[in-house]
Amino acid sequence: MRDPILLTPGPLSTSLRTKSAMLTDWGSWDQSFNQLTASVCRDLLEIVNGGASHVCVPLQGSGTFAVEAAIGTLLPRDGKLLVLANGAYGKRMAQAVEIMGRQVVLSHSADDVAPDAAELARILQSDPAITHVGVIHCETSVGILNPLRELAAVVAEAGRALIVDAMSSFGALPIDLRTLQAEAVIASANKCLEGVPGMGFVLVQRERLLASRGNSHSLSMDLLAQYEYMQKTGQWRFTPPTHVVAALRAALDQYIEQGGQPARLARYRNNCERLLAGMQRSGFRSLLPPELQAPIIATFHAPRHPGYDFSRFYEAVRDKGFVLYPGKLTQIETFRVGCIGAIDHAEIDQAVAAIAQAIDELGWSTEWQAETGAFA
Amino acid sequence: MRDPILLTPGPLSTSLRTKSAMLTDWGSWDQSFNQLTASVCRDLLEIVNGGASHVCVPLQGSGTFAVEAAIGTLLPRDGKLLVLANGAYGKRMAQAVEIMGRQVVLSHSADDVAPDAAELARILQSDPAITHVGVIHCETSVGILNPLRELAAVVAEAGRALIVDAMSSFGALPIDLRTLQAEAVIASANKCLEGVPGMGFVLVQRERLLASRGNSHSLSMDLLAQYEYMQKTGQWRFTPPTHVVAALRAALDQYIEQGGQPARLARYRNNCERLLAGMQRSGFRSLLPPELQAPIIATFHAPRHPGYDFSRFYEAVRDKGFVLYPGKLTQIETFRVGCIGAIDHAEIDQAVAAIAQAIDELGWSTEWQAETGAFA
Ligand SMILES: Cc1ncc(COP(=O)(O)O)c(C=O)c1O
Ligand SMILES: Cc1ncc(COP(=O)(O)O)c(C=O)c1O
Repeated sequence: MRDPILLTPGPLSTSLRTKSAMLTDWGSWDQSFNQLTASVCRDLLEIVNGGASHVCVPLQGSGTFAVEAAIGTLLPRDGKLLVLANGAYGKRMAQAVEIMGRQVVLSHSADDVAPDAAELARILQSDPAITHVGVIHCETSVGILNPLRELAAVVAEAGRALIVDAMSSFGALPIDLRTLQAEAVIASANKCLEGVPGMGFVLVQRERLLASRGNSHSLSMDLLAQYEYMQKTGQWRFTPPTHVVAALRAALDQYIEQGGQPARLARYRNNCERLLAGMQRSGFRSLLPPELQAPIIATFHAPRHPGYDFSRFYEAVRDKGFVLYPGKLTQIETFRVGCIGAIDHAEIDQAVAAIAQAIDELGWSTEWQAETGAFA
Repeated sequence: MRDPILLTPGPLSTSLRTKSAMLTDWGSWDQSFNQLTASVCRDLLEIVNGGASHVCVPLQGSGTFAVEAAIGTLLPRDGKLLVLANGAYGKRMAQAVEIMGRQVVLSHSADDVAPDAAELARILQSDPAITHVGVIHCETSVGILNPLRELAAVVAEAGRALIVDAMSSFGALPIDLRTLQAEAVIASANKCLEGVPGMGFVLVQRERLLASRGNSHSLSMDLLAQYEYMQKTGQWRFTPPTHVVAALRAALDQYIEQGGQPARLARYRNNCERLLAGMQRSGFRSLLPPELQAPIIATFHAPRHPGYDFSRFYEAVRDKGFVLYPGKLTQIETFRVGCIGAIDHAEIDQAVAAIAQAIDELGWSTEWQAETGAFA
């Protein structure tokens, strides 16, 4: 059997060409590897038109490490971060700040509600101590698209600095740093860029980064130190995940060849629409209204059959070659299906069929249909 | 031309079988990946007989991340770490503690001198505030083998806790946690285990880890949180470097098949002896006396020719298929040659020949010979 298709929001299914780039060992001191790193950084900046204002600082570790590093480096010790949280990743950002012992305040909205720009303006006006605002571009917890541009405008208007967790949107949803005022945009290799996990990166305003000396709470996660070392030597400050970097280079080559961000977005949008339509035909209801649905990952209500159990469902679908993702909601029973990775309509259609067949085999459809009237 | 052989202390040359393990994408939530992680952890503990007392906590990022995480998690906020430093990695450990704002004191010895057990005893007696002692097993800066057992005995006798950076020794030099009293032993995938870079791990006394709540300065680097999450779910707390983990699994399979630690040590020792003998025949002098030389990486005095330049030397040798490593000493001009990785006598002999030939072609040998009398 072929390897299962990962319908998960990173790690995800990558192309064989991307994985094959890991069949070489690179010396981390070698000029050829330095060039690899530099070209990756250049391309990442280019994707969001950041070259004139921002620099790219890659970091070892998962995306969370990059988020923590960005805040630890950019938020002054006496700064205060407001996090607009409508899901797990917003909460996690706030938790990171709390642990590093700096001031943080959360503005919650429900998981299926986008943060409100007017409410943000009110908070910023009422609390002048807030220096930074953290926004999650696509909150992967349910797959909601937050209104980045509107929120950024309010932050800029109020003279505060914006930190964007663009982990699950970077490369697919448009971000333009020539017009969007963001001190930092954070993402990782293994989502819409379709690289493998093991590194994140932060696109950070050069001036702000250079002014951040002494902020970092951590040796390893000091982005200024990483940047300065790279500027001086071309090398990563500590051993880089060489194979992961090489895979990202290969993934970026394919990204560019395929037409860059517009093409990536078009493929994912098509994947997502096909998924939503197909699942609806099978009787599933998605959580989000279409206008809030990012074309990254979709959340579906679990079958309401009393015997429903995510593990059994997961195993049954996996047995047919597709890896699903559990829901992240505590109140409602859900599951998630990713639309990203080196997949297109063929895999999406196969997945929809596999899910329907699994539900059928598990005997959950008839009763569920009777109860909900969802099956046509 | 074949890929160059990396004579560097990690990233290093890995086997094709190890790299090929990265040709699969794994779901980080999937049972099969959880089992992969669990089996890797089990084997890492087994290598140092730690199963009864210690647990293995893997961590995303480079080795330095694991060192910082271990100390951040285990050193109480009001603890004090003494670092026995005879090279760059000892100093780096101390720097990590300083940045996290805890007490640290350094005991320096020269790069080619091992820390002294009697001196350690005196320091511990004179400073009761010291709660932890950090020791570098093999100080990769010059390749010196520090007397871990003697130092550990003094630390235990004085009732303090020991933290061992075994980054470049783990898997090759024997460590036995049934007799060595160490609160934590830290290493990474990409050195003597011959995996690829992207993750470290800490073997930590279970009781001490469980007592560490609230110590960590960092969300991402809290080893207790990572451990508890893994215990509960089988998963890494944040996205794991799946391909790197799979490569480590493959590397460990080969490690075990080849005869484990004794066989790994024997091969590296043979590599190192052959390297030292061959380089000596070519007129090179190694920095360390044989009794201090760990069979991991050797430091050589640079040719004394006035035209010597490491970059040119490096390029000339690289052109012949071998990647050298620069020296890390500030006072003396040196270069380093690693003995580790998926290489044996054949590659070592080829490397020795390539180095001699490069020196010859660069025209550095005759004058150097005249000046030093080193060439026979
Ligand atoms: C929006 C967002 N932020 C942060 C993260 C955390 O990244 P990682 O799991 O790589 O640490 C994710 C991962 O899914 C994410 O989707
Ligand atoms: C003894 C020792 N400690 C720490 C490190 C740091 O590891 P990394 O470069 O993976 O951060 C190294 C790396 O060579 C090492 O040899």
